[in-house]
Amino acid sequence: MKIVKFGGSSLATGEQIEKVFNIVTSDPERKIVVVSAPGKRHAQDAKVTDLLIDCAKGYLQFGEAKSSFEAVIERYDLIARELSLSDEIIRNIHDDLLTLLNSDKSRPEKYLDAVKASGEDNNAKLISTYFKQRGIEAHYVNPKEAGLIVSDEPGCAQVLPESYKSLYKLRERSGVLIFPGFFGYNKKGEVVTFSRSGSDITGSILANGTKADLYENFTDVDAVYSVNPAIIANPKELRELTYREMRELSYAGFSVFHDEALMPAFRAGIPVNIKNTNDPSKTGTKIVNEREHTDTPVIGIASDNGFCSIYVSKYLLNREIGFGRRLLHILEDFNLSFEHMPSGIDDISIILRQDQIDRKQEEHIMMRIKDELQADDVKVEYDLAIIMVVGEGMRRNVGTAARASNALAREGVNIEMINQGSSEVSMMFGVKEVDEYRAVQALYEEFFASVPV
Amino acid sequence: MKIVKFGGSSLATGEQIEKVFNIVTSDPERKIVVVSAPGKRHAQDAKVTDLLIDCAKGYLQFGEAKSSFEAVIERYDLIARELSLSDEIIRNIHDDLLTLLNSDKSRPEKYLDAVKASGEDNNAKLISTYFKQRGIEAHYVNPKEAGLIVSDEPGCAQVLPESYKSLYKLRERSGVLIFPGFFGYNKKGEVVTFSRSGSDITGSILANGTKADLYENFTDVDAVYSVNPAIIANPKELRELTYREMRELSYAGFSVFHDEALMPAFRAGIPVNIKNTNDPSKTGTKIVNEREHTDTPVIGIASDNGFCSIYVSKYLLNREIGFGRRLLHILEDFNLSFEHMPSGIDDISIILRQDQIDRKQEEHIMMRIKDELQADDVKVEYDLAIIMVVGEGMRRNVGTAARASNALAREGVNIEMINQGSSEVSMMFGVKEVDEYRAVQALYEEFFASVPV
Repeated sequence: MKIVKFGGSSLATGEQIEKVFNIVTSDPERKIVVVSAPGKRHAQDAKVTDLLIDCAKGYLQFGEAKSSFEAVIERYDLIARELSLSDEIIRNIHDDLLTLLNSDKSRPEKYLDAVKASGEDNNAKLISTYFKQRGIEAHYVNPKEAGLIVSDEPGCAQVLPESYKSLYKLRERSGVLIFPGFFGYNKKGEVVTFSRSGSDITGSILANGTKADLYENFTDVDAVYSVNPAIIANPKELRELTYREMRELSYAGFSVFHDEALMPAFRAGIPVNIKNTNDPSKTGTKIVNEREHTDTPVIGIASDNGFCSIYVSKYLLNREIGFGRRLLHILEDFNLSFEHMPSGIDDISIILRQDQIDRKQEEHIMMRIKDELQADDVKVEYDLAIIMVVGEGMRRNVGTAARASNALAREGVNIEMINQGSSEVSMMFGVKEVDEYRAVQALYEEFFASVPV
Repeated sequence: MKIVKFGGSSLATGEQIEKVFNIVTSDPERKIVVVSAPGKRHAQDAKVTDLLIDCAKGYLQFGEAKSSFEAVIERYDLIARELSLSDEIIRNIHDDLLTLLNSDKSRPEKYLDAVKASGEDNNAKLISTYFKQRGIEAHYVNPKEAGLIVSDEPGCAQVLPESYKSLYKLRERSGVLIFPGFFGYNKKGEVVTFSRSGSDITGSILANGTKADLYENFTDVDAVYSVNPAIIANPKELRELTYREMRELSYAGFSVFHDEALMPAFRAGIPVNIKNTNDPSKTGTKIVNEREHTDTPVIGIASDNGFCSIYVSKYLLNREIGFGRRLLHILEDFNLSFEHMPSGIDDISIILRQDQIDRKQEEHIMMRIKDELQADDVKVEYDLAIIMVVGEGMRRNVGTAARASNALAREGVNIEMINQGSSEVSMMFGVKEVDEYRAVQALYEEFFASVPV
């Protein structure tokens, strides 16, 4: 049994939904279909979810949001007409949404969550109607009825463990089940949404709960690439990568997945197949627990910029028990999360995302470090990029560090930082932001030039 | 004006003290002479300081320590006879030490400190007597009278800032001043000793206090080596290295200096010259604030073993603000000081000296990390070595990391960890202990093979 999830662009038009119908019905294992709200039809288009947020905000502030409301209804209407559905479905969506928009606004976060979630919910109803019209036994499943219970954190709900047992029972239902992504219900029976890209999370939870054999995640790309195609033209596509590799890659710029989304599937050991709705014959990329083909040490290279480093030096620092902990405590007081912490004998550097700090805060942080830790020197360097070189094959491969640092040296890229040693499947290089692309190109050349695409 | 310090082996016999006399009198800038207690004359010999500790312990436990007491007196007596000094000096030392050993024992730590310090104190008296006999104006200076005031921490005293002003006045005194190393006086006027190698500390404090032009530190080696001679035969001698380089090297196995000892001289920016009492014509090694010759990126390679790593992994760890800090807090509860903390996306490793942990504690630490941080996995790996590759020339030298990791790869040494990025003058590699020597040899070959000795 497979869980099949379709993203917004796979459901943006009637034509796309027809593709979805063909994909689902071509394999009887495709039992549960998780759907997003209609996404963009072209780059300048609006997503239904964003229109719904506009609606909710308009109603909260002015008691109405005519144009956004009409835009939402029009999107569903267009799809319904393309698919030759009866007017009834649109009348229902119209009335439901209006009732929802006029409902209790005393808790704006709750209100916003309910309005946002309607995008997926109404789309699931529309799609199940279409499936039925095409003569397939299909049922819309409401997450509350299915028992998808989540924590009461609007916009970042967490699934509660008891859900999994209820969800297992979905296996016993007949027909194809159309399940709206992105939200669940709290214990009081109110809608609460996941973080954005939450339909991936719903699919992952269902895969875990139903103990599916496979979680198919349909998007609009053929595969996950070994490197950002904006930096390297036509990079190697990946057939298979492990969860660990995906996590390490997604950390630095690989945006295929909201990485948290896969946790429930990962915990249950269920493989994920990323496929293209527009070309379902392509194998896509499989995310697995372990992979066999580790003939090349490196599977992917990812990079991200916007990092800064806070450098702290103090003579005899490494003799002071508690120095590192107290330094991290100061950062915590400013609610800063750090990425890495390379250390010398008399110095520690903290690498963190620089958008967390404004210049005024910077001064304050520096002052506290200087005063409370009696540091000799504190300085901040901005505009660093982090490059992750990732691969299970690096685990025991002598010489990968040498190859990587050689490649950077050949290109004249100065390595500001190397962090290797905790993760066995990655190696991190810090470089100046201006060197980021050149560094990625040099590393790709080194590890992929001889590999057949 | 120069501060000249002589270690125990430079003062172990009359013949050695004659060398000291010749060195001091050959340069009128050599104004203040800091002396240790008589050290070993050969490998199996006892140091006077160790004999004094035996004395003190004997008196504390049994009210006497005849053989140790006699051994101490015999050492001074031998030196006095070699130098043809009158019996008076030995009678004085004998009577003083006996009075001291029979003094108040109600605070054993204080008692021990006073007995230990007498080794340097009596040697300073003996040496100034010898200098005078040779027709030189020389004066024994007592640290209390000179104003060397320290904190009341027996065995690990810290100099108090007000001392420096008093010590500056030593410049005005006439003649050569013979100053006993290793101890100062607390505010109550009691003797308190520095940590071992404390004569280096006294010299460093005097250099700072008197604003000396140079701190000459005489030992029994010609120079500091670029690498441990036990690993590489006849390694390159260093003419000059910076304080930073010395700190980084001394961290991992370079034992020329108790590194803390140089702090006062370093703070005042006073260069240190390490020279050989037995061959004072040799230039020795100079430790400076900045050095000019940085044509080679690497100046030295040091290594040390006996490290372990505690590996902690948890899915989505890097999203948790405070994880690192809480992890360090647990270590702190066990009074563990850590050396490095490389981190991946979902994991952190803590590198620390393994002699701090016993196996029973290990279990307890693991359990607390698992429970309190809800870690997915915690494991400890023992028997790692750390290799420091050090040099100011690495500051902006593209390719040093590549050369180093290439050299290790060529030798088939697997790099367990790389830590580079905080200190600009060093790069750290973690390898298995069994690979330590091979790794150092490979790195020495890479960075020094072409350099003229």
